[in-house]
Amino acid sequence: MVNAIPFSYQTTVVTKKQFDDHITLYNGYVDKTNEITKLLAANPEYSSANATYGHYRGLKKGESYAVDGVILHELYFQNLTSNTHANAPGKKMRHLLDRYWGSVDKWKEDFTACAKSARGWSLLVYEQRTDACRNILLDTHDEGNIATAYPLISLDMYEHAYFLDFGTDKAGYIKRFIDSIPWDVIEKRAAAVVG
Amino acid sequence: MVNAIPFSYQTTVVTKKQFDDHITLYNGYVDKTNEITKLLAANPEYSSANATYGHYRGLKKGESYAVDGVILHELYFQNLTSNTHANAPGKKMRHLLDRYWGSVDKWKEDFTACAKSARGWSLLVYEQRTDACRNILLDTHDEGNIATAYPLISLDMYEHAYFLDFGTDKAGYIKRFIDSIPWDVIEKRAAAVVG
Amino acid sequence: MVNAIPFSYQTTVVTKKQFDDHITLYNGYVDKTNEITKLLAANPEYSSANATYGHYRGLKKGESYAVDGVILHELYFQNLTSNTHANAPGKKMRHLLDRYWGSVDKWKEDFTACAKSARGWSLLVYEQRTDACRNILLDTHDEGNIATAYPLISLDMYEHAYFLDFGTDKAGYIKRFIDSIPWDVIEKRAAAVVG
Amino acid sequence: MVNAIPFSYQTTVVTKKQFDDHITLYNGYVDKTNEITKLLAANPEYSSANATYGHYRGLKKGESYAVDGVILHELYFQNLTSNTHANAPGKKMRHLLDRYWGSVDKWKEDFTACAKSARGWSLLVYEQRTDACRNILLDTHDEGNIATAYPLISLDMYEHAYFLDFGTDKAGYIKRFIDSIPWDVIEKRAAAVVG
Repeated sequence: MVNAIPFSYQTTVVTKKQFDDHITLYNGYVDKTNEITKLLAANPEYSSANATYGHYRGLKKGESYAVDGVILHELYFQNLTSNTHANAPGKKMRHLLDRYWGSVDKWKEDFTACAKSARGWSLLVYEQRTDACRNILLDTHDEGNIATAYPLISLDMYEHAYFLDFGTDKAGYIKRFIDSIPWDVIEKRAAAVVG
Repeated sequence: MVNAIPFSYQTTVVTKKQFDDHITLYNGYVDKTNEITKLLAANPEYSSANATYGHYRGLKKGESYAVDGVILHELYFQNLTSNTHANAPGKKMRHLLDRYWGSVDKWKEDFTACAKSARGWSLLVYEQRTDACRNILLDTHDEGNIATAYPLISLDMYEHAYFLDFGTDKAGYIKRFIDSIPWDVIEKRAAAVVG
Repeated sequence: MVNAIPFSYQTTVVTKKQFDDHITLYNGYVDKTNEITKLLAANPEYSSANATYGHYRGLKKGESYAVDGVILHELYFQNLTSNTHANAPGKKMRHLLDRYWGSVDKWKEDFTACAKSARGWSLLVYEQRTDACRNILLDTHDEGNIATAYPLISLDMYEHAYFLDFGTDKAGYIKRFIDSIPWDVIEKRAAAVVG
Repeated sequence: MVNAIPFSYQTTVVTKKQFDDHITLYNGYVDKTNEITKLLAANPEYSSANATYGHYRGLKKGESYAVDGVILHELYFQNLTSNTHANAPGKKMRHLLDRYWGSVDKWKEDFTACAKSARGWSLLVYEQRTDACRNILLDTHDEGNIATAYPLISLDMYEHAYFLDFGTDKAGYIKRFIDSIPWDVIEKRAAAVVG
């Protein structure tokens, strides 16, 4: 049983109306995750499992989509914060970004391009196998993730995230988000990577 | 710079010809990962970054596909082993499978259905956010992954993995794979999850 | 060289602001189609063509996405009309819908479910091979189309199509669209199917 | 109710074993198309229709995949023929290829690159809206199609199509296919385009 995290509105990136609609969608993913988990446990219909169509396959496709919907939105809402947060990378993040990107500014330039190119999400991840901090783009919640990547920053590029406030002005939304990254929150995530 | 791991043929799951062709494909993903990383560093063409088409977007789509191709194949080849390995789950894996699936046999039944329903990969993962051991199916290397999942077992269901030996007999291939899981290798991966 | 069709605002389904933002996106697809066609002609880089990553592959992925973006939006905008249009199916459409769905109301019920289930588009198509009028759902412009299907009705379910006016109220948007279908426009498309 | 077309082995492109395995897969798509059509008619569960997960959505995703699997395989098997067929484009196809590609050889060069870049299918289509003969690539049966395109030539690039005979030698398979195109069959398809 997955429980929704109660997020309150305290950001300057989007308006309250945009934020509230977004929370509605997020709660839907939490509900769907629980519904799917329950249906899989109750009656998976193993005997008709099939790669073209089957009841089980439909549930599994929904599972990765819903679970990723929960995870990525939570990371994103934790990135949408008020002015009380640190507005520059902490020691660990500065170390990571300098090492892989040369400088924080170079990383920002790449992350901006990544967000502009994404149809779903733009993420900064630490990828274990290749030992690299990569910006990756997802076209849907579960399309584009890397198997052993650990997400550090999560930016929702679905139209539902910004359309009420920014319309077709993607660049304006991306800039506002990057300028408002709560680096103290990200620093805590980095601890899982660099110890 | 990513280096290919040199795998030698020592499995009873597939023939040497099938294995060797597979290694050729794997090496291709390693090369592509390095090529893409180099191209992104040399000339990302940030100014034309776009979600419909752009040079940068093409590279990023190739990046997640190639990097996942490397990671999942390596986990898979490490799962294709000789008879010298443990043929039953160790303490940690037994604990995890009992906790989330009730029994090792119940997990096997679900993993079999998951593999039959997959167009790309069937994975057993530990998923952090929902604190669950889930079987997930990928339709391509980078479609279906969960952002905060840690892979424990990896089964390649692309046709290139089994077609030479099994033709359209998917079920035979899946059974052979599951019967040959080197549980001592998996136990080491589990340590990252349960400590 | 593809030219954008100049659409004027004359619908009761969405507001002018929503419509105008949508036209901006449509014009972007027309421009991208022309840019991609030009780049493919100028320098396709055949020698590095590859299914993981290649310049050519990136262009081809963009091509189907952009061309479908043009086609589906045009069919959609032609479906967004004023009150001067016929508000019931004509002879040909009634014949088709009765034959495949039993009644116009049964078709509406299914089309509504199809739209609710779609992440990109909901289409009514006549599919030649199976000789059937099917409602199909697309998750992106170019994911879910059927090779020999002929589109009759096109409903955009991307969030950019309705979010400004309806927020998370998908059902309200779908109902408004269906109630406003200009059946005289659809009747002309049906001529290509039933002669 | 869709009936499978009975194809007999009469090609020099692939071996009989490879062909027979492929026919088995094709028959599976015909069966799935009928199963899905029946399930949709029997109990579509409209009330739970949803874009994340729902019984209806699972069926619709299977529907486009299965129906495209039927259509594309049939066009492909009709392209796999014996030496009794015309080995050069007829009047209509020569006209189309000259007009859009400059020459038959230039088209072949592009189609080869398209096939190398595809994960599922490489198709030559006539696309109505942009009035162009385009080579398009599909990554799965239903990913990459263009809404108003009419398929003229269909080459299966799934690994199940060639792996038994060609292993990882994609280029060899593509060349063998192109050298064996039965142009008299294609000429008949072209009649639907140029009259």
